[in-house]
Amino acid sequence: MKIGILGAGNVGGTLGSAWARAGHDVCFGSRQPNDARIADLVKSAGARASAVTPSDAVARGDVVLIATPWDATRQALTDVGRLSGKILLDATNPLQGGLAGLDFAGGRSGAEQVAAWAPGARVVKIFNTVGFNVMANPRFGAERASMLYCGDDGDAKKIAAELAAAIGFDPVDAGPLAEARWLESFALLWIRLAVVNGQGREIAFRLMKR
Amino acid sequence: MKIGILGAGNVGGTLGSAWARAGHDVCFGSRQPNDARIADLVKSAGARASAVTPSDAVARGDVVLIATPWDATRQALTDVGRLSGKILLDATNPLQGGLAGLDFAGGRSGAEQVAAWAPGARVVKIFNTVGFNVMANPRFGAERASMLYCGDDGDAKKIAAELAAAIGFDPVDAGPLAEARWLESFALLWIRLAVVNGQGREIAFRLMKR
Repeated sequence: MKIGILGAGNVGGTLGSAWARAGHDVCFGSRQPNDARIADLVKSAGARASAVTPSDAVARGDVVLIATPWDATRQALTDVGRLSGKILLDATNPLQGGLAGLDFAGGRSGAEQVAAWAPGARVVKIFNTVGFNVMANPRFGAERASMLYCGDDGDAKKIAAELAAAIGFDPVDAGPLAEARWLESFALLWIRLAVVNGQGREIAFRLMKR
Repeated sequence: MKIGILGAGNVGGTLGSAWARAGHDVCFGSRQPNDARIADLVKSAGARASAVTPSDAVARGDVVLIATPWDATRQALTDVGRLSGKILLDATNPLQGGLAGLDFAGGRSGAEQVAAWAPGARVVKIFNTVGFNVMANPRFGAERASMLYCGDDGDAKKIAAELAAAIGFDPVDAGPLAEARWLESFALLWIRLAVVNGQGREIAFRLMKR
């Protein structure tokens, strides 16, 4: 799989590196692709990783991960040209300042806003519900953390689930993209447990079935 | 512990029966305490269970569980007299019709609305995030389902956590009562996964730590 990354911070860097090590071709998009931090990231991610401009990351990717801070998301998606037809994995969360809540502007979840900013993209909400430390290692003893995802394109969801499983998550289909508001609320629950309410960041939910 | 139950439906009936079997004194409050359904419930719950009026259930309980449908909650709390000083376990969810969302009236979570309707009560949000079938049996193989709770009264939270552990849950402190909106959103995630999006009701989340 060829994967372009928009937002090579903690989340994009961690997921891109994990996918490159799992054998996927990963292009980290950066406005400064020769920046020392990006060079270090590419080096640690191995031979299948490279740093390019955001537009090139999108042009080369069959799959594009958007993992920008929320207030940079709209600009990042509109700067990079045509996303129509691409599988767009939305790992963002529309966080309000101070982690106070979620910015469901116009009553729309973050994922629905992302879909509106990337016409024709096959959006899957995924990789938004745990911290990057859990993405780096989704295993808790013998158990794997669950990774909930939702979207309206069945083939795109299948690939998203495969990319989650490839790095150690247990993927869970949470339904159509309209469910993204509950995944974004779930993300804020994780964040507030981890950062505000004393549970610490080395936590993750697993959905059990019987 | 003496526990009064407001709302002897699936949730209140299941929790009250489990607590009675665990050795607590449980009063099911009902406007028809001699109703055949309530009599069956009391009989199956055993010698420590009884059926009384809602006001008597509150008067006798050190702990009161509110487990009414959302649109009956305000009336149920205001009908029963003084709740000040009682530990009030809020298992309700402010569900909109069709499970479309949550009714955070005036920007307040359900638990914050409940607290306003029960002045002086020591409110703990708990038992709202899984279905009654999981409350009847929180064990999934060797694992226990997590039960998240939040509140502003430390002693009340401690008792709430003990009552969760007594029936098989792994209690998780999610912080002050202001966090209830995230627990109520988490409840809707469970409900929508179970009922709308094909996972079925025999599911529960466990918070893993490492």
